[in-house]
Amino acid sequence: MKATMKDVAELAGVGLGTVSRVVNGYRVKDSTYQKVQEAIARLDYSPDEYARGLKTNRSNIVALIIPTIWHPFFSEFAYHVEKELLKNHYKLFICNADGDAANEIEYIEMLEKNKVDGIIAITYSDIDKYVSSSLPFVSFDRHFSENVSYVTSENFLGGQLAAQELLKRGARQLAYIGGTNIHENETKQRKLGFTAQAEAEACAVLELDMEEPLVNPEEQIESFLRLHPQIDGIFTVNDFMALRVIKVMDRLGKAAPEDYQIIGFDGLRNAEDQSYLLSTIAQSLDLIAQASVDLLLRLISQQQREKTRVAIPVRFEEGGTTKILS
Amino acid sequence: MKATMKDVAELAGVGLGTVSRVVNGYRVKDSTYQKVQEAIARLDYSPDEYARGLKTNRSNIVALIIPTIWHPFFSEFAYHVEKELLKNHYKLFICNADGDAANEIEYIEMLEKNKVDGIIAITYSDIDKYVSSSLPFVSFDRHFSENVSYVTSENFLGGQLAAQELLKRGARQLAYIGGTNIHENETKQRKLGFTAQAEAEACAVLELDMEEPLVNPEEQIESFLRLHPQIDGIFTVNDFMALRVIKVMDRLGKAAPEDYQIIGFDGLRNAEDQSYLLSTIAQSLDLIAQASVDLLLRLISQQQREKTRVAIPVRFEEGGTTKILS
Repeated sequence: MKATMKDVAELAGVGLGTVSRVVNGYRVKDSTYQKVQEAIARLDYSPDEYARGLKTNRSNIVALIIPTIWHPFFSEFAYHVEKELLKNHYKLFICNADGDAANEIEYIEMLEKNKVDGIIAITYSDIDKYVSSSLPFVSFDRHFSENVSYVTSENFLGGQLAAQELLKRGARQLAYIGGTNIHENETKQRKLGFTAQAEAEACAVLELDMEEPLVNPEEQIESFLRLHPQIDGIFTVNDFMALRVIKVMDRLGKAAPEDYQIIGFDGLRNAEDQSYLLSTIAQSLDLIAQASVDLLLRLISQQQREKTRVAIPVRFEEGGTTKILS
Repeated sequence: MKATMKDVAELAGVGLGTVSRVVNGYRVKDSTYQKVQEAIARLDYSPDEYARGLKTNRSNIVALIIPTIWHPFFSEFAYHVEKELLKNHYKLFICNADGDAANEIEYIEMLEKNKVDGIIAITYSDIDKYVSSSLPFVSFDRHFSENVSYVTSENFLGGQLAAQELLKRGARQLAYIGGTNIHENETKQRKLGFTAQAEAEACAVLELDMEEPLVNPEEQIESFLRLHPQIDGIFTVNDFMALRVIKVMDRLGKAAPEDYQIIGFDGLRNAEDQSYLLSTIAQSLDLIAQASVDLLLRLISQQQREKTRVAIPVRFEEGGTTKILS
């Protein structure tokens, strides 16, 4: 009698899902892989039929919904997600939602119809109710009210790290410059971490938190900086905001790191072989992509059923706008 | 008797393909659209059946093969291609070949099996023989030996423009710095245009044309610049090469535009709302995307059958590394 997947699972002492993962080329622990392969060999089990059965139900395509592909953060993320998926024999379908919630909803509906196996999304709009619970879905940075798993950077720790790095380089008057959005999201933790750390080191923080969508941000930044000329250590919500601040400071005749120091957040680079745009708290997009893909594949294979949150470490990167510590 | 598409074509005085384009929502001339719609109304023609028939043969997915998505040039191109495709009810499948010919070939084989309707590709490797003549294919920049249509920027004119802009801003010793690849491609025209224009204006050009893949390009650039300290007007093969030259010049204590002027090629921007990285001959990626999509859709609908070359204008953009003309 022909061996079944159940026979393999019993002999190897693992679950059916694990055998299925091995058979379909997903990553499992090395020792598990060994056990399953030995059982397959001993039972002369042929997985083809099962694999074929799966194939008809699966497209082996994952969709990535991003606000835009024309942005070094999202394009780097897409780059790493695709690399991770390829390792797992999945193809990537990039959906460029162009920052438009209507587009995002249209994409989600389209993807559900086209039976992609799962979705990874970075979205800052309110699409909770359109995220079907039937389709495996992993969100980056955005905490949905529904039962959605998400991956995020250690934003609070990143804010703390920024305060530490500025203070140990001699900054005396700290400032935070950012934008704030009505939707709940993880980026708010950056400011909280920054101010908490400054407070712990007995240092006050001046804040400019502009409402999004931003209206004349450069004018708002200029007024803020003119009002507080003593500011010499700035942390911004992201790297692009820091570039704006640098431009305004330039108009005011001040240069970093001589006259002030500034740290952004994200760790943007133009391409893999280019340098950071400025000193920054870098998100580890390679690890974020790996965690997102891993989580999504576990949801697809139903190894993971409960909502979960995965937090990925950040790191400080020197980029020329902070003083060199000797 | 029920009217057929042929009846519509005859009454409207157009070809079957044109009726099919109108019925499937592709763009045709306004006057043609009018005629076809009138014929459809008069004959009470219902296109549903035909549309359904087409649907089963078409995926309405186009694939874009690019060396990497993590590069502002390719991500901007992907951004515009997707925008154009969406207007035509097509979805985009981005294939990140990671600069690897084996990946590109694997993608092309996979795409042929998965019946995408067509491929737009930017590739600098030798995949000629893998491009099936049966699948509509548009190449950007790369001239294939096979019967492949392609879109390119006016590279020769761009080189000429760079020489003109440098000379009219007072540069006296011009230099070209670039890399050269064994595969035939359009970027070589940039250097040819630059030197031709310089010659026409009786100005000599010093050249550093490094072999690709580049080995220690910064060292090569530094030796070249040290050997020719009189260089005060530089044109590079692309913007990233210009950033390298600026870095080396910085080490040599020279700053643009005071000590020398430099113009890159591409027109890279980090994102839609960001500024150019430096003075540059910008490629019109929106128009290139539009032309590529238009050409591909004409190949798909078989309105276009012959190989063709479409050249798109370039423009000079000030980006802070050339003197301001008063």
